[in-house]
Amino acid sequence: MGEANETIPVGVMGLGSIGRLIAGAALSSPELSLVAAIDRAPSLAGRALSQLVPGAPASVTVSCRLEDIAPALKGGVLLHATSSRFDAALPELESAIEAGIHVVSTCEELAFPWLKHPEEADRLDQKAESHGVTVLGTGVNPGFVLDRLVAAAGSVVGKIRKVHAQRVVEVLGRREALQRKVGVGLTEAEFEARVEAGGFGHVGLAESAALCALGLGLDFDELEEEVRPVLAEEEVSGPPRIGQGMVAGLYQQVRGFDEGQEVINLELTIAALVDEAFDHLEIDATPPVRLKVFGGYGGEEATAWAVVNAAARVCRAEPGILTVLELPSGR
Amino acid sequence: MGEANETIPVGVMGLGSIGRLIAGAALSSPELSLVAAIDRAPSLAGRALSQLVPGAPASVTVSCRLEDIAPALKGGVLLHATSSRFDAALPELESAIEAGIHVVSTCEELAFPWLKHPEEADRLDQKAESHGVTVLGTGVNPGFVLDRLVAAAGSVVGKIRKVHAQRVVEVLGRREALQRKVGVGLTEAEFEARVEAGGFGHVGLAESAALCALGLGLDFDELEEEVRPVLAEEEVSGPPRIGQGMVAGLYQQVRGFDEGQEVINLELTIAALVDEAFDHLEIDATPPVRLKVFGGYGGEEATAWAVVNAAARVCRAEPGILTVLELPSGR
Repeated sequence: MGEANETIPVGVMGLGSIGRLIAGAALSSPELSLVAAIDRAPSLAGRALSQLVPGAPASVTVSCRLEDIAPALKGGVLLHATSSRFDAALPELESAIEAGIHVVSTCEELAFPWLKHPEEADRLDQKAESHGVTVLGTGVNPGFVLDRLVAAAGSVVGKIRKVHAQRVVEVLGRREALQRKVGVGLTEAEFEARVEAGGFGHVGLAESAALCALGLGLDFDELEEEVRPVLAEEEVSGPPRIGQGMVAGLYQQVRGFDEGQEVINLELTIAALVDEAFDHLEIDATPPVRLKVFGGYGGEEATAWAVVNAAARVCRAEPGILTVLELPSGR
Repeated sequence: MGEANETIPVGVMGLGSIGRLIAGAALSSPELSLVAAIDRAPSLAGRALSQLVPGAPASVTVSCRLEDIAPALKGGVLLHATSSRFDAALPELESAIEAGIHVVSTCEELAFPWLKHPEEADRLDQKAESHGVTVLGTGVNPGFVLDRLVAAAGSVVGKIRKVHAQRVVEVLGRREALQRKVGVGLTEAEFEARVEAGGFGHVGLAESAALCALGLGLDFDELEEEVRPVLAEEEVSGPPRIGQGMVAGLYQQVRGFDEGQEVINLELTIAALVDEAFDHLEIDATPPVRLKVFGGYGGEEATAWAVVNAAARVCRAEPGILTVLELPSGR
């Protein structure tokens, strides 16, 4: 709803494929005015945003530093899409907060930062509160399909014994960054070495599990995460072409246990030539719930709209770090 | 979450089948203490609630009037299940508000009272605000399947062109009040006469349409509602037994139009021997969404839990009339 004729100034930070989609979505939102764009790549500095995002106002050029455009965004919202990792995003989040700018971010760990960064999350929460701004991590995964939608589906049932949610995504035809992220084209050994080295795989599945627990009133004392390659059974003509036996994507699972009993099971497959793309959810409760999203939520576009639709919401929310569970339903 | 060891006092008003389920659900909620029960039926007055709701504390006897137990509920929540109609519920809602008691109600028209009672809704909203209490109409239908869940599913997509949601409920084995409500066993002529006379059919479908519009950012300038009998193609052995050609239930549809264009279509079938019970949702937007709940949400139980799970929420919400769209996700 918002005040009539008063739009909220927003800036996009991080002009990768998701950031550009966010900028495009922001342009078509009647509640928002896109007034700034920031990317640290020197090759983009000073360019007209309209060269990257068709329809962007001619007045918006790409800045390298948030500080340069902070005054125009005060009281508005930074739409932040630079990193999956909380540590990497933190200095940018802090700059925005100190400048009095709300933040909606695709940073996966920010969806529930207390899971892996409890102390820094508390400090960030306090900083946001003291500057009167709200910070939200959202997207489609984490941020919706395996957490917010699960919690919404479980809003009208009794005590929950277990939740099992699955997402299967076709990676062909998706952005290259996603294909790289899930190891498409690697050998099995290369994939395993990356898993071994740490930091490989989809970021945010454990955060989704934590959000499920919070939203559904489940306790867990142990969280197990596993990442495995999905190998191409036959050659995939692509693009990209994937040789037989090479990595076609990943399978990832997080299981939450309460005193040895599995209470949360989230499974994610992002691979080439999946049999069927879908999101599926089963809640063992009274009454039970079984729900399927045919084709699954479209990752990139849904992420961009998750961010843009939340922008007006954060301006009206309590200051501090917000989770997607606290957002009202709707656009 | 709430304060540790501090439970919220709640009372159930209206001890029909739904009210008794609500009382049972409230008993198993660690956040709530069931301290009162009210029903205007003289036959119930003074009886121990435990005779109607197994496990209810021995201290709770059924009162006829809210006034008698209002002091025990001040600052707590009235779980209200007496009527589908706003006009009938209004004096009870006002009494609770004046006594400083929050309300969560299954009153279908209260799910979005501004649709059919805009002035009274505004007055009630102001009254609740001035007494510092919150009033919410919820349930599974309206309150969830055809509105809140629809708005949740549409939270991460762009501009919505149209929404189409369906709910198909098997009426055999459900409570008798529901079977009567949908005309089971009537002749076609009796059914049509009741529709003609007005006030027959499922209450709340139009309110769901209004909530969909609000949650999804859709405008409508016209709302068309239709109620038709579903006739038994062959004899239904029941219970209840339904002769061939007699009414086996109802089909109801609400369509919302914006400048002649259909933007909302909600369909509800509650009948005997349906081919399949389910909830189904299609959102025409970018990205599109198609979602199915296999078997459909279990009506009575889900309604009871919708009420009970919202009880702690209303205590933390802004005073006034709340809609289900404003509730956070989760239990």
